[in-house]
Amino acid sequence: MSHTVAVDIGGTHIRVAVFEPNSIKPIVHQRTRSHANKSGVYDRLEKAIEAVWPKEKVGAIGIASPGPLDPHTGRILATPNIPEWQNFPLTPKLAHHFGVPAYLDNDANMAGLAEWKYGAGKGHQDMVYLTISTGIGGGVISNGCLLQGFRGMGGELGHILIDPNGPLCGCGQRGHIESFSSGPSIARYVNEQINAGQKSTLRAQPDLSAAQIADAAWAGDSLAISAFERAGYYLGMAVANYLAIFDPSIVIFGGGVSQVGDYLFKPFEESLRKHTFHPHYLDDLVITKAALGDDAGLLGALALARMKSE
Amino acid sequence: MSHTVAVDIGGTHIRVAVFEPNSIKPIVHQRTRSHANKSGVYDRLEKAIEAVWPKEKVGAIGIASPGPLDPHTGRILATPNIPEWQNFPLTPKLAHHFGVPAYLDNDANMAGLAEWKYGAGKGHQDMVYLTISTGIGGGVISNGCLLQGFRGMGGELGHILIDPNGPLCGCGQRGHIESFSSGPSIARYVNEQINAGQKSTLRAQPDLSAAQIADAAWAGDSLAISAFERAGYYLGMAVANYLAIFDPSIVIFGGGVSQVGDYLFKPFEESLRKHTFHPHYLDDLVITKAALGDDAGLLGALALARMKSE
Repeated sequence: MSHTVAVDIGGTHIRVAVFEPNSIKPIVHQRTRSHANKSGVYDRLEKAIEAVWPKEKVGAIGIASPGPLDPHTGRILATPNIPEWQNFPLTPKLAHHFGVPAYLDNDANMAGLAEWKYGAGKGHQDMVYLTISTGIGGGVISNGCLLQGFRGMGGELGHILIDPNGPLCGCGQRGHIESFSSGPSIARYVNEQINAGQKSTLRAQPDLSAAQIADAAWAGDSLAISAFERAGYYLGMAVANYLAIFDPSIVIFGGGVSQVGDYLFKPFEESLRKHTFHPHYLDDLVITKAALGDDAGLLGALALARMKSE
Repeated sequence: MSHTVAVDIGGTHIRVAVFEPNSIKPIVHQRTRSHANKSGVYDRLEKAIEAVWPKEKVGAIGIASPGPLDPHTGRILATPNIPEWQNFPLTPKLAHHFGVPAYLDNDANMAGLAEWKYGAGKGHQDMVYLTISTGIGGGVISNGCLLQGFRGMGGELGHILIDPNGPLCGCGQRGHIESFSSGPSIARYVNEQINAGQKSTLRAQPDLSAAQIADAAWAGDSLAISAFERAGYYLGMAVANYLAIFDPSIVIFGGGVSQVGDYLFKPFEESLRKHTFHPHYLDDLVITKAALGDDAGLLGALALARMKSE
């Protein structure tokens, strides 16, 4: 049994931690700024790992990173936050430098894997994890396996079309669920409604956040409330699709936007019931919040490294 | 190594066949009318199996049936064609009567499994099979496993919503891909267009079939051609969703409507390219027709029985 090094690469910070066998409490845990848009990100990452490298034998390095990326080859294909990494062989370089195997997958898959192994999804064999924040990401366990796909690009649950006449998505397509229910999509809707003359305690502004809208909803602002209702309604359609596709026993919600609670989830559950293809999908279906918070990516990287190196 | 008995239950016929180990050519193969809407379907099925039962040891019985059904318990929940079977314990009854294990799954999953084991999908680990006929059914292989789901109701690819303002689906929901691109949906569209005054060599009639519309398309009828274009366009949206979700290496089309060829698949491929979330999903993606034709359900039942009893 060896120690495991886990890495979570974010837009602003790189987190690095060392875990003993069978533990999910890190014995060392460090955050360093990634300065993602400047050069030398890889060198900073390498140094951050060196700084925590334990005396004990390390079995593998696991990495959660924004995608798109190829988990089978360990290459980052392109990631908006780190312009330097284009078709970048991240795990081959790390494996060569540190002399241990390195494994990589995208942050949403890793958060889903962590919730399955250590969090809200423990014991389930068919699980859908959705993170709703600046985007919508998915992590799927099907038949007790992490869904990765042929090119490692499976489980992109935020980018399914649910309305061809819907809003533009960040990816350039129209009507993806992300374009209705992500934080920026909710803010865009509120801005549009205010600009169209709807009354609100909020003011239209480009950097309006879902957290501000949530505060307004809690204070009784009807536009803010209806914005979450709308996001929840479309989310219900999308999750109805995931039920028909995966027939999971649990659906787990993570990400900042899901913190708003009932303003999102009451209309969501109503819409889910309305749109579910067959009521049997709802029998014994658990719908719950993620348990691991901000540690999900890091713990997913840990789980991946353990899973692959076992 | 034992023989396997495979059963394919259809609306009009029950097919029963016996296979030697390692062979997919039946040594006996019989069709009997199911008289599905009359009583005694189970007794006719039992007699049909008795009639082909070999002298050699039988390892298991595999069954493909219309759903919804529960493959984990072997119960038919309800199937429109066989009103007698409501929450009907099909495999427990067969297993008790014949003294061998019996395994069940729905016809689309079984056709997908057959194409994966013996047909167009051999060697792939991530496969999406779609059958387009009176409905749209799906069979998914993910990570080298048949996707069944917690209640055995996964892979219902025809019942994903792609347009909340779309037509009514046979299931009662609105805007599922089946409501755009199944045979009856294509016919409904043609009827609607004729009734709205569009010229066509076809005449509006309740029992207009996709085959008749295909004939008209081949003869140059512009409404018939545009009806398949529309079906292909929406099909491209749906398959773009399946790519984002499963990231398969192959997509296989079966079912009568897919026989129309380029009139459906040219607009489909154009729409798929247009709607794909990331062009990488199309790299080395095989899009092809099913190889096993009408035998797919029976061979899937064979594959299931072998898989489960190995």
